[in-house]
Amino acid sequence: MAKELKNLTKRADNYSQWYNELVVKADLAEQSAVRGCMVIKPYGYAIWEKMQHELDSMFKQSGVQNAYFPLLIPKSFLSKEADHVEGFAKECAVVTHYRLMNDPNGKGVVVDPSARLEEELIIRPTSETIIWNTYRNWINSYRDLPLLVNQWANVFRWEMRTRLFLRTAEFLWQEGHTAHASKEEAQDKAIEMLNVYGDFAERFMALPVVKGVKTANERFAGALETYTIEAMMQDGKALQSGTSHFLGQNFAKAFDVKFINKDNQLDYVWATSWGVSTRLMGALIMTHSDDNGLVLPPKLAPIQVVIVPVYKSMEQLEQVNAVVDPIVAKLRAMGVSVKYDNADNKRPGFKFADYELKGVPVRLVLGARDIEAGTVEVMRRDTLEKHVAPLEGIEEYVKNLLDEIQNNIFTKALNHRESLTYKVDTWEEFKEQIEKGGFILAHWDGTTETEEKIKEETKATIRCIPMDAEEEEGKCIYTGKPSKRRVIFARNY
Amino acid sequence: MAKELKNLTKRADNYSQWYNELVVKADLAEQSAVRGCMVIKPYGYAIWEKMQHELDSMFKQSGVQNAYFPLLIPKSFLSKEADHVEGFAKECAVVTHYRLMNDPNGKGVVVDPSARLEEELIIRPTSETIIWNTYRNWINSYRDLPLLVNQWANVFRWEMRTRLFLRTAEFLWQEGHTAHASKEEAQDKAIEMLNVYGDFAERFMALPVVKGVKTANERFAGALETYTIEAMMQDGKALQSGTSHFLGQNFAKAFDVKFINKDNQLDYVWATSWGVSTRLMGALIMTHSDDNGLVLPPKLAPIQVVIVPVYKSMEQLEQVNAVVDPIVAKLRAMGVSVKYDNADNKRPGFKFADYELKGVPVRLVLGARDIEAGTVEVMRRDTLEKHVAPLEGIEEYVKNLLDEIQNNIFTKALNHRESLTYKVDTWEEFKEQIEKGGFILAHWDGTTETEEKIKEETKATIRCIPMDAEEEEGKCIYTGKPSKRRVIFARNY
Repeated sequence: MAKELKNLTKRADNYSQWYNELVVKADLAEQSAVRGCMVIKPYGYAIWEKMQHELDSMFKQSGVQNAYFPLLIPKSFLSKEADHVEGFAKECAVVTHYRLMNDPNGKGVVVDPSARLEEELIIRPTSETIIWNTYRNWINSYRDLPLLVNQWANVFRWEMRTRLFLRTAEFLWQEGHTAHASKEEAQDKAIEMLNVYGDFAERFMALPVVKGVKTANERFAGALETYTIEAMMQDGKALQSGTSHFLGQNFAKAFDVKFINKDNQLDYVWATSWGVSTRLMGALIMTHSDDNGLVLPPKLAPIQVVIVPVYKSMEQLEQVNAVVDPIVAKLRAMGVSVKYDNADNKRPGFKFADYELKGVPVRLVLGARDIEAGTVEVMRRDTLEKHVAPLEGIEEYVKNLLDEIQNNIFTKALNHRESLTYKVDTWEEFKEQIEKGGFILAHWDGTTETEEKIKEETKATIRCIPMDAEEEEGKCIYTGKPSKRRVIFARNY
Repeated sequence: MAKELKNLTKRADNYSQWYNELVVKADLAEQSAVRGCMVIKPYGYAIWEKMQHELDSMFKQSGVQNAYFPLLIPKSFLSKEADHVEGFAKECAVVTHYRLMNDPNGKGVVVDPSARLEEELIIRPTSETIIWNTYRNWINSYRDLPLLVNQWANVFRWEMRTRLFLRTAEFLWQEGHTAHASKEEAQDKAIEMLNVYGDFAERFMALPVVKGVKTANERFAGALETYTIEAMMQDGKALQSGTSHFLGQNFAKAFDVKFINKDNQLDYVWATSWGVSTRLMGALIMTHSDDNGLVLPPKLAPIQVVIVPVYKSMEQLEQVNAVVDPIVAKLRAMGVSVKYDNADNKRPGFKFADYELKGVPVRLVLGARDIEAGTVEVMRRDTLEKHVAPLEGIEEYVKNLLDEIQNNIFTKALNHRESLTYKVDTWEEFKEQIEKGGFILAHWDGTTETEEKIKEETKATIRCIPMDAEEEEGKCIYTGKPSKRRVIFARNY
């Protein structure tokens, strides 16, 4: 068994360490020489590319076009929207100079003090400000609306405590920024895009999510409403996986973006923004993987099927090759990504462990004896079950198995979430339950004050007010004041 | 006719202004609030996405995988490779601080002086340094090689004079960085990737290019050899459209990247890097477009076919819709991107001018009389010729026409280049010809000194030593010293 695999910490022993090790051992990402910035390695990037591809198609189907806006934002832009500056103008990377020069006192280069910028530039932590400053010139009349634009970009937020994918100073994301002629249309768009995220998470990532509304306290800086998809990790903690914001006319007012409406009146434009990031990689890894390594949903796996030959002679290998080649061709023609690993410099046992670690959903093992018997050994990564299947029709069999795995890991994650979701009605029970992890459905009096006290005492935050929450008369878990529906509390990443 | 189109400067009047106006009027890009940084608008970005898609497929076919490396580079990294620091450590964006704070003297935010970085960080102008610093941990043995990695990224070089797409402070590009066990393999890879660029330029952009080697003086900072594809614009100036570098062991030595070779000896790793950028957008625009606007090669056009109805009543429009809908469906099924513009708020004349400006390769116009006659009016953007074609089989007809346009604009550009390529043997003739533009094939004595004198006196640079240059005894155009082959001189972007 491969050394890397043997050394993987078990989830039960230290979930956090298991995650950190797995990201590195499975060749997904690693720390770079720049504090808080990660290198996304080819195998990890291939998964991210698949996510991008699916999301991008979904955006385009909803009428969104891609564009690209500048990396750097004038410092003064951040101050134009009052809430936004509070949220984003603090921990950020500041460009102050535009030139280096040879060090007059020695080797290397130093900042040229004469090349100081008149106004400092900030590496974008998010792009509402520069984009709305641009939209001012794009929008004159209701005929220019809606404007539905997205960009795939890197952003930067100076974070003190970083973890690969989950919280890094630089990360990759997409940010959609739409402009509308009416409040209703903008609100609908914000919810439409949240639903896109929800569909993507469930259909491609096999990640069950709760869709909901954030409390005022947890809103995006500058938004009137923030919608979220919240997922539960295996340790019972919540991970916010995507957000969509209804921004009202805040940014239009800050950047003076007006339009002539159908009644020939000047009005400010209505806005949304919405984003998901490489943080989704963290959610994907933490939701499905196990003590043997990654478990990937077939729809996002860079390699869906690996075929490993077992043989005692080159003659036997050639025999196996002859059987495998047409299987590979047929699987590829069916749109299945398959790798035939007949490299001679690694033993089958090493290969098995390596592909388990990397989360390849299906493994086929084939030797001379199998060929005689007309069978093949099939291993599915999600359950690690092995069984023997007929060679005849193996391609259809594998295709169906991939669908089954996709469904199975979704169901498993959903069952896990449901088994760790509790209705709680007393403060004592709340404090006890939160220590064990999971989602707590409880009544809350609707005030930020109570929300913050609960957080102080238990480290639990309100993840969201679920969109499908039933109306139910109740009493706040903390103050006993009246409440009309339950919200979700959890500790979170 | 649309106002925007009427106002487009003619190429003959002012080629440079024609370009600047066209980029903006055709909705490709615009200047941003940040000096030297552009906004790539949705229509321009859609073309860039098509380029990315094709290039990315070609890279993957050659075994290259994508990854992502940090945006910021520690200042000291730039100094590690002696030539590299000279080339790249001067005009760059320097991050010195990691926090802003509320201005104690008033409104807005200021840099927090206490949040100064110990070592400044540079926004990557190119990523050799951070990537080779990473490769040190990825490479131990020849078994880890070759390493074939590419990233799609934004880069930043502080430019004083900028032009949209051609020279911007921030630009988008891909940078490939490969690591090899032998000199020969690295050299071959550098040339292989140059050929990928050449194929892409010619097959997709319809851009004829000369492949060649740069002189020592024009090499990438840190390379032992730089290969280039050079294209000629309509004004006879050259545009360097892509480069591929053989880096020898320079970066391996600077970042101490060694491997154990097959003979069990430690050796430094051999390297290449290669890149193309959004500058290709400039090449595309300048090569094919005319006084009416953009001309796009069908293979990269976001909209390949536009269909415009002419009608006098809603009843007629419905008649046309009924004929057009199945044509649209069939074209899409054939993989043709088609837009049916039956919007009622713009007149056909406005639409015609707008789609001409945007370079849509084929326009179909259909009215009640055409339907009666079973015909349709076809306009091809490259020649602006209109003719009538039978409705029956129009889809196949259009498909073939798109191929014909793709070939025609390539041939046109090739003929143009050939008509402006001159063999010149005297210095007098050289000085006269260079004023008229075009490529000059002339002998050169091989020294940097002569190259620089020629540049001083004529503003002509050596674009490359063509790879297919025939051996030919001759005398240097400037010094009369012996030379073995002609090189290409031109003024350039």
